[in-house]
Amino acid sequence: MLRLGPIAAAARRLPAGPRPGPLCLAGSRGSFARSWPPAGDRGPLFRQVRAAAAGGERVRVLKTPKGTRDHPPAQTALRDRLLSAVVSCFKRHGAAAIDTPVLELRETLMGKYGEDTKLIYELQDQGGELLALRYDLTVPFARYLAMNKVTNMKRYHVAKVYRRDNPATTRGRYREFYQCDFDIAGQFDPMIPDAECLKIVHEILSDLQLGDFIIKVNDRRILNGVFAVCGVPESKFIPACSTVDKLDKVPWEEVRSEMVGEKGLSPEAADRIGEYVQLHGGLDLVEHLLQDPKLSQNKLAKEGLGDMKLLFEYLTLFGITEKISFDLSLARGLDYYTGVIFEAVLLHQENEHVEEAVSVGSVAGGGRYDGLVGMFDPKGRKVPCVGVSIGIERIFSILEQRLEAEMLYKKDPKLLKQLQYCEDTGIPLAAIVGEQELADGVVKLRDVATREQVDIPREKLIDEIRRRLEP
Amino acid sequence: MLRLGPIAAAARRLPAGPRPGPLCLAGSRGSFARSWPPAGDRGPLFRQVRAAAAGGERVRVLKTPKGTRDHPPAQTALRDRLLSAVVSCFKRHGAAAIDTPVLELRETLMGKYGEDTKLIYELQDQGGELLALRYDLTVPFARYLAMNKVTNMKRYHVAKVYRRDNPATTRGRYREFYQCDFDIAGQFDPMIPDAECLKIVHEILSDLQLGDFIIKVNDRRILNGVFAVCGVPESKFIPACSTVDKLDKVPWEEVRSEMVGEKGLSPEAADRIGEYVQLHGGLDLVEHLLQDPKLSQNKLAKEGLGDMKLLFEYLTLFGITEKISFDLSLARGLDYYTGVIFEAVLLHQENEHVEEAVSVGSVAGGGRYDGLVGMFDPKGRKVPCVGVSIGIERIFSILEQRLEAEMLYKKDPKLLKQLQYCEDTGIPLAAIVGEQELADGVVKLRDVATREQVDIPREKLIDEIRRRLEP
Repeated sequence: MLRLGPIAAAARRLPAGPRPGPLCLAGSRGSFARSWPPAGDRGPLFRQVRAAAAGGERVRVLKTPKGTRDHPPAQTALRDRLLSAVVSCFKRHGAAAIDTPVLELRETLMGKYGEDTKLIYELQDQGGELLALRYDLTVPFARYLAMNKVTNMKRYHVAKVYRRDNPATTRGRYREFYQCDFDIAGQFDPMIPDAECLKIVHEILSDLQLGDFIIKVNDRRILNGVFAVCGVPESKFIPACSTVDKLDKVPWEEVRSEMVGEKGLSPEAADRIGEYVQLHGGLDLVEHLLQDPKLSQNKLAKEGLGDMKLLFEYLTLFGITEKISFDLSLARGLDYYTGVIFEAVLLHQENEHVEEAVSVGSVAGGGRYDGLVGMFDPKGRKVPCVGVSIGIERIFSILEQRLEAEMLYKKDPKLLKQLQYCEDTGIPLAAIVGEQELADGVVKLRDVATREQVDIPREKLIDEIRRRLEP
Repeated sequence: MLRLGPIAAAARRLPAGPRPGPLCLAGSRGSFARSWPPAGDRGPLFRQVRAAAAGGERVRVLKTPKGTRDHPPAQTALRDRLLSAVVSCFKRHGAAAIDTPVLELRETLMGKYGEDTKLIYELQDQGGELLALRYDLTVPFARYLAMNKVTNMKRYHVAKVYRRDNPATTRGRYREFYQCDFDIAGQFDPMIPDAECLKIVHEILSDLQLGDFIIKVNDRRILNGVFAVCGVPESKFIPACSTVDKLDKVPWEEVRSEMVGEKGLSPEAADRIGEYVQLHGGLDLVEHLLQDPKLSQNKLAKEGLGDMKLLFEYLTLFGITEKISFDLSLARGLDYYTGVIFEAVLLHQENEHVEEAVSVGSVAGGGRYDGLVGMFDPKGRKVPCVGVSIGIERIFSILEQRLEAEMLYKKDPKLLKQLQYCEDTGIPLAAIVGEQELADGVVKLRDVATREQVDIPREKLIDEIRRRLEP
């Protein structure tokens, strides 16, 4: 199991109620005497600064750029623990870390992200090279592989990326945010690296105990096959693809009308697409579509479905098919995917104990991109790749809110509800201090699972909790 | 003692010669079968990518931006270990980590760096706010303090900063580089936080075993006092200051001619300045200057010298004055310093065992900046601060080159020179394998310090090395 380290562990393992928690890390250090600086004139530089502070040079707007934020110490500590939990999973799967610059040549990034290219931050032309901020860690990885002629690598990379997107900070969507990427480059037996990526997503989401989740999988070749057999001209595959991708947010009727209206597909083609992309299931659906009279005649779709079947075999061996949904509506926006694509979503996003529900979208995503490295190689040599990105900011939002909820739970003081909360969230012990306990100098310690409770003398409380929590 | 973890420890503790070292972490994973992807047409997306790779969209320039670099796995691992050694020192001194965005509003950064403002990377105006990349971690820290009304904080921050400087990558000077900052904000008894910053520099440089070093200290108030008593008009203090700062690179004659020529100081003023700024020493020099008939009459200089005396008292208590040099030529370029300034330099930068000597400049620097937070506070409220930045990239260059030297040492096969190298650098054991040892199935293990050597059967070698290296 992934371990979140002392802070998060404490949050999961100590009883609810006022206690030193992660937010206390930022506590003040007021114990020093305060006589510095001595009063009096501090010289011309000082006077300059004072003049600046008093008027013209004063900074007028005191904020971080739109869609970015500071992390105070408690958040930084929580995030570092979360990141190290993810990284330890990547390492367990044999990946090594690399680092690449935040800045890339503009031309390195252009033509890789489809419609999202407009979201790239470009640097001003100050002479010299034209630069941009990286949009993801995948394109820099492909550039790295081609530049260093690496044909074979399992790497992870945890770093910030930049997107001039519309920020939705309560849902964990920022313009500057961390990505945690794991990728496998190289030619291997079909679907083994792809299955490992899904296994990693499953491990991380299970072990972080974020609640129930599902991992949707699809294949760009299947989607393209669907478009072909539904009579979509090849030139409209990509627009059709990006429209289908909206099916997780809007109903089919809206998607259909965008296809017919904006994207210029025929109503018949759209209706035929609708029959396919609303399907989702497991291996049975794969088998069913392999027998589909139209789809089975399409070379692309057949290839994709054959690989999907193989993928499900590996996922069965890994014992994780229960969380996998073959979902024909999954399309993913980026241009560079060429095969399997996947996306993990949390199922129960609302938490009844939290006043404002955290609404998060996908918490991980990825796929196969066999052509990207070849775009960088001077001779066009290809290095097939598959990878996954963990949506650490959204996970962070959930954990943060959950911790906050446990900290603030005293808003509702009813004992029974507090104990119910402990049962729901797996908190093992509750310490209860009422008037009687105060008078007796004891604390009532309750085993949440068995509901047994005993009075413990206060001076023995810590030892008793330690003893009970020993593995 | 700071510990660099397994990799660097191995480099320091294992005998020289060919062996699995840090660079082997990047080793290939060639053991998988290679039949993916299957040959054949992969569909329209694939054909698109192939077309792109074959012609128009191919990336023409395959490089990272000027002055930036990728870190392959071995370097990333070494750097992570180095950073965690520095961070553990910061934590030991009670600092908490924060994180701030790489992007700041342009106006946040403007007017803080003097002449160096031209080195700030600005983002293109793509609509919305005008942004820039952070130039250091100090100004964002001051912005953070003012924005969150924090008046009291001990924080560290390890992150990348950006400067459109002339890169000198062999000396570890890049346009994108890590800074490791430790700062103390708040009003405390004079010189205690300042002394702690120097103690931290001393701890880190000692424990990383980079070779002999010296920490130069000065005070902006003393420098300004010197300028005043030498007859420099107040308007020319800052230009004079930045000229004096060059004394560590060029002789006094050149500095003098720049003062008189470019900066328009009178020859007499320049000569008088020269008498002061070429002085360096310890507490004795402080005492001497406190008696200086002119300087002791200057309020600013007297204040600075009084504090410098107090600082030396604390440094004596810390037992580190041996490495401290009160050096009146130290000026430091940045505008925002208001009091004590300091800079650590390595003394023996050339390594006779390395073919290309690593020439590094300062490896740490910092000072007091009592006016910076007030420039951000809407009411101009001041929060006095002092901090230090560890020049991790330069230290990294040294460690990297040293490791490389140990890896590549076989370039010069003379045994005696190899053993001398072991003695010089504190490598405790040398394993010697000649023709006789090969024939006998043994390895000659030499204790470098005592020069005793014994034959060890190969199968017992690892156990024997482990036994001898046990603490």
